[in-house]
Amino acid sequence: MKPKELTICGLAAVRAQFAADPGAIKRLYFDYATGRRIGVICRTLAQRKKIYRCVEPAELEKVGGTLHHGGIVAVVEAPEMREPAAADLTAWVKRCEPLLVLDRIGNAHNLGAIARTAAFFGLPRLILPRDPAAAQPSEAAYRVAEGGMTHLELARVDDLPAFLRSLVAAGYDVIGAATRGGLPQAQSHTGKPIALVLGNEEHGLSAEVAAACTRLVTIPGSGKVESLNVSVAGAVLIWELLVRAPRGTR
Amino acid sequence: MKPKELTICGLAAVRAQFAADPGAIKRLYFDYATGRRIGVICRTLAQRKKIYRCVEPAELEKVGGTLHHGGIVAVVEAPEMREPAAADLTAWVKRCEPLLVLDRIGNAHNLGAIARTAAFFGLPRLILPRDPAAAQPSEAAYRVAEGGMTHLELARVDDLPAFLRSLVAAGYDVIGAATRGGLPQAQSHTGKPIALVLGNEEHGLSAEVAAACTRLVTIPGSGKVESLNVSVAGAVLIWELLVRAPRGTR
Repeated sequence: MKPKELTICGLAAVRAQFAADPGAIKRLYFDYATGRRIGVICRTLAQRKKIYRCVEPAELEKVGGTLHHGGIVAVVEAPEMREPAAADLTAWVKRCEPLLVLDRIGNAHNLGAIARTAAFFGLPRLILPRDPAAAQPSEAAYRVAEGGMTHLELARVDDLPAFLRSLVAAGYDVIGAATRGGLPQAQSHTGKPIALVLGNEEHGLSAEVAAACTRLVTIPGSGKVESLNVSVAGAVLIWELLVRAPRGTR
Repeated sequence: MKPKELTICGLAAVRAQFAADPGAIKRLYFDYATGRRIGVICRTLAQRKKIYRCVEPAELEKVGGTLHHGGIVAVVEAPEMREPAAADLTAWVKRCEPLLVLDRIGNAHNLGAIARTAAFFGLPRLILPRDPAAAQPSEAAYRVAEGGMTHLELARVDDLPAFLRSLVAAGYDVIGAATRGGLPQAQSHTGKPIALVLGNEEHGLSAEVAAACTRLVTIPGSGKVESLNVSVAGAVLIWELLVRAPRGTR
């Protein structure tokens, strides 16, 4: 595969990509059964003189790089991941946009699961650190996200603690999910836009990231199992802090 | 494997089983690295004259029936899944116990993920239908639950709609997660104990199950992706309706 290309597998993810940006699809491969369900996509690719081809399962596995191709693989331009500028932060604050920041989520399935939830709730973007420990928007992440990755703007920051401090300066309430924090409560909403920061599956937030947050919250548990899965914890906090609180349903 | 036996894989799940009911462990197999971390478990099994053995990875895969054995496999008595009696329902209502009911969750990983969340929040039990479409408490479910399955009482009901009607009669507010329902809100708490019903990944609640519910709720989305993963939706609803509402944090 050429550099800056990404494979997107599975009908939901490919359809989402087509709906959001059909021009980004460079080549499309599918099995016979799936080919009968994507007439509109194929016609559009034909008009654009792009490659679309019904292939054997073995070739799908090869192109997609996975057994879990779900009968269809699109090769797309990898999304550009831009470092946000100061003007972006000002615009986000003005629009009161909720932010989701991932401090080294290491597992691509968790990244995809979080992206699915974030897109379901209509969050505009995901912010990822430029860190080798952070899972990248990969084939697995796109597949698990069921189209969610395509609906999110992806931003990448070099220095996450510095970025969080600039969010605070711009007017964000930056809330970190930690093992020892306050109760997450929509009623604690300050009126400021919220940036929610989720940490690594094993190690949680780094000390520097935690220190850069306005406050820390913890989902209270029974102690019977050690933790929630990070995508589940993220969903509960997105619901409580980013969806319900601004809506002011109570 | 003999009937009524179950393999539990992974250190978290095996440790949870040992903590909850060490007597249920009939045989234990582990690799060398894991063996150095389970001295207490091995000593207890030795006292009880149970088999515990350090084996090669290939044998672990064979005993566990999976590549994902995480270095340790316990063979345990399968948990008894009893049909709840009328007296049970009366006792649950008296203790105001929240219930989680799964209407044919089909994927064992989703069952395990839901069990992890339920146990994290201290729910007492899971209620499953006797239905071939419903995932069973299998090796995969135990492994994904990270010990959560062990902390839950598992009950099985023959006729789920009839069971839900008996819950309503006993005094439960039976809330079904549906595609068209009201907004889930802790503030709508009636003071009655709540039974939350989650439906199948593809088909949702059956019509009969939905009809037996007191009310239906829907997590509102942006429409950008079709749905939440069922374990994520379940977590949001458990948080909103079973954890926060009774606590009355607002």
